[in-house]
Amino acid sequence: MPAFDKSEYMSRLQEVKEGMEERNFDVLLVTDPANMNYLTGYDALSFYTPQGVVVSLDEEHPTWLGRGQDKTCADRTTWLDEDHIFAYPDYYLWEPEKQHVMDYVADYLEKEGLDKKSIGVEMDAYYFTAYWFERLKSRLADANFGDATMLVRNVRRVKSENEIEFMKRAARIVEGGMRKAIDSIEAGVRECDVAAGIFHELISGTDEYGGAYPSLVPLMPSGEKSNAPHLTWTDDEYEEDQIVYLEMAGCYERYHSPLSRTVYIGEPPERIAETAKVVIEGLNAALNAIKPGATCHDVQAAWQDVISKHGLEKESRMGYSIGLSYPPVWDENTEYFRPENYTVLKPNMAFHVMPGMWVDDFGVAFTEAVRVTEDGSEALADFPRKLFLK
Amino acid sequence: MPAFDKSEYMSRLQEVKEGMEERNFDVLLVTDPANMNYLTGYDALSFYTPQGVVVSLDEEHPTWLGRGQDKTCADRTTWLDEDHIFAYPDYYLWEPEKQHVMDYVADYLEKEGLDKKSIGVEMDAYYFTAYWFERLKSRLADANFGDATMLVRNVRRVKSENEIEFMKRAARIVEGGMRKAIDSIEAGVRECDVAAGIFHELISGTDEYGGAYPSLVPLMPSGEKSNAPHLTWTDDEYEEDQIVYLEMAGCYERYHSPLSRTVYIGEPPERIAETAKVVIEGLNAALNAIKPGATCHDVQAAWQDVISKHGLEKESRMGYSIGLSYPPVWDENTEYFRPENYTVLKPNMAFHVMPGMWVDDFGVAFTEAVRVTEDGSEALADFPRKLFLK
Repeated sequence: MPAFDKSEYMSRLQEVKEGMEERNFDVLLVTDPANMNYLTGYDALSFYTPQGVVVSLDEEHPTWLGRGQDKTCADRTTWLDEDHIFAYPDYYLWEPEKQHVMDYVADYLEKEGLDKKSIGVEMDAYYFTAYWFERLKSRLADANFGDATMLVRNVRRVKSENEIEFMKRAARIVEGGMRKAIDSIEAGVRECDVAAGIFHELISGTDEYGGAYPSLVPLMPSGEKSNAPHLTWTDDEYEEDQIVYLEMAGCYERYHSPLSRTVYIGEPPERIAETAKVVIEGLNAALNAIKPGATCHDVQAAWQDVISKHGLEKESRMGYSIGLSYPPVWDENTEYFRPENYTVLKPNMAFHVMPGMWVDDFGVAFTEAVRVTEDGSEALADFPRKLFLK
Repeated sequence: MPAFDKSEYMSRLQEVKEGMEERNFDVLLVTDPANMNYLTGYDALSFYTPQGVVVSLDEEHPTWLGRGQDKTCADRTTWLDEDHIFAYPDYYLWEPEKQHVMDYVADYLEKEGLDKKSIGVEMDAYYFTAYWFERLKSRLADANFGDATMLVRNVRRVKSENEIEFMKRAARIVEGGMRKAIDSIEAGVRECDVAAGIFHELISGTDEYGGAYPSLVPLMPSGEKSNAPHLTWTDDEYEEDQIVYLEMAGCYERYHSPLSRTVYIGEPPERIAETAKVVIEGLNAALNAIKPGATCHDVQAAWQDVISKHGLEKESRMGYSIGLSYPPVWDENTEYFRPENYTVLKPNMAFHVMPGMWVDDFGVAFTEAVRVTEDGSEALADFPRKLFLK
């Protein structure tokens, strides 16, 4: 069963078709798994083999194309009828020199009379490789290809009330995961055992609903490693006088609510306590700056003002759009809180506000998933903003 | 700290360079995260942003190129010295129309005098998008690009004793996950709570070593959904007279040992019990067929003989190479047990032998991770091969 009513999918589709008309695309080949899900409900761990959804301006409903073995997943998880689900035989997968899935896609487009059209492809999505594009072009010499990476993504920027509700459920789930982490971290406990407890909470979820797998596993570097934000865990034991950086997300029906906190085992040095204070002050300033009409630039500037006052700098972006996603990341890749981004915020856009400082020998971050409300912002999780001491 | 001694990385590199010479590549741009890890040890959850390793025939050591924020991860996890780690500023990421990471890569290759060379790129790897390739080509008009998707992968096919040891540790871990799953499945228990217990075991690992995150989360469709092998879990409760398909992998230092078993809650119908018996008989036949000198074709044929005798058919591949991997899959994408594959097996190749039947209203599979020994095969996990009844 798809996660939303058919009417919600149809209204998304309508917006996508308007985007296609603006860009003069007759056909859209959607291969980003999150975009496929957004339009059809399709949800399976099958994006390691080629698959896609074809949207044509001439056709009311989109068409799913995927592996034979996954047709049952399409039957079960999408709102599409049998006439809009096409599965390729397995031999398309394992001998690319003889036949490739993109040949199947080309044949389908030919059969539908779409092979000489203007076709949008998601050139910079994770699961559309350079080879696929070369193969498709070699088969459809009369088609006119264009880059549609941002087309469906842009429609996803403003969430429906139903999507926000899913993100709030994800927030309930991440509160449990973060609580479990902070409760279980102490000197002598292995990092992997803390990670195991976090996973248990994120997947078990609440008494009312379970969790889905987050697109990224918990990031939790400790001690000096905390200056390397994309490390996971080891089987080392935590030690006294260690800092632990924790970033994780709850996930419900592929909608994410990330959250980061920082823990110190023992009495923190002045320098760490001070940095934590500044980061939290900057986080609060950024949250206050988020409201309809403000720009991404404004939000970054509010944070920048606080840290500049304290003589700190941060080069990386200070937040990004979130919502529906698949591995390898929960970022929606539309908007970023950066000085150069003047996108105007609207109600029900959602962001991971990501203030953190990674310096020479440690890292500190306190982050929140938020939605833009009618007159401000709402943090999705309810979790104390402080340096947790153990 | 990288997972292996520098000498092991240097010997891998030597084999890769021989492959480059054979294919007339002067330069190799490695972007598959597993290949990057294989050559340098690099291990971080950063493959959602562009990164790569450049191997040049003229240079003894490879060079890591990645995001500024991830330089600390490269410092910590690779064996490379400072002169072989280059980090790009964050602004390359967020305004692709102005500057893109592939511009940085092109500048690097120019600076090193490699921009007019024959350059191998991994055209069909998950994290080398169509856009990256277009951008790189547009910047390096005098380079001669070729497809090197299989070059490092092919070197990975035969494992060292150290790699096999890591896979055996992963097998100890997956035994714990599977045991936990089978113990906890029963009518009235939520699927997500069973999944939570599995994750806990896979990450906590054993008393001696912890687990890493597997490249794919557990697949565990139940009841009629079991005919859709790539579904995960829901928050529904298990019911009496349900079949549950379980596929998961333990992971140690990115090396995987997958394992599948099937469970029935209650007394199984004759049809399911019979199918399970045939699949196990076919699995055993396939395992017996694996030995140095046999081909992938032979292994598939041994399985095919058994199921044909019982009037069953299976279209999808019956196994694939495994070892080192990153999301979205633990498949190494080199060899497959298929009728058309005549690759000759060698000691320390490793496979996921994947016999399963997915029919109209249920699915049954019993699978093993194995290595090829000097005179046969060795299943890495020690777990009963039977239909588990609950």
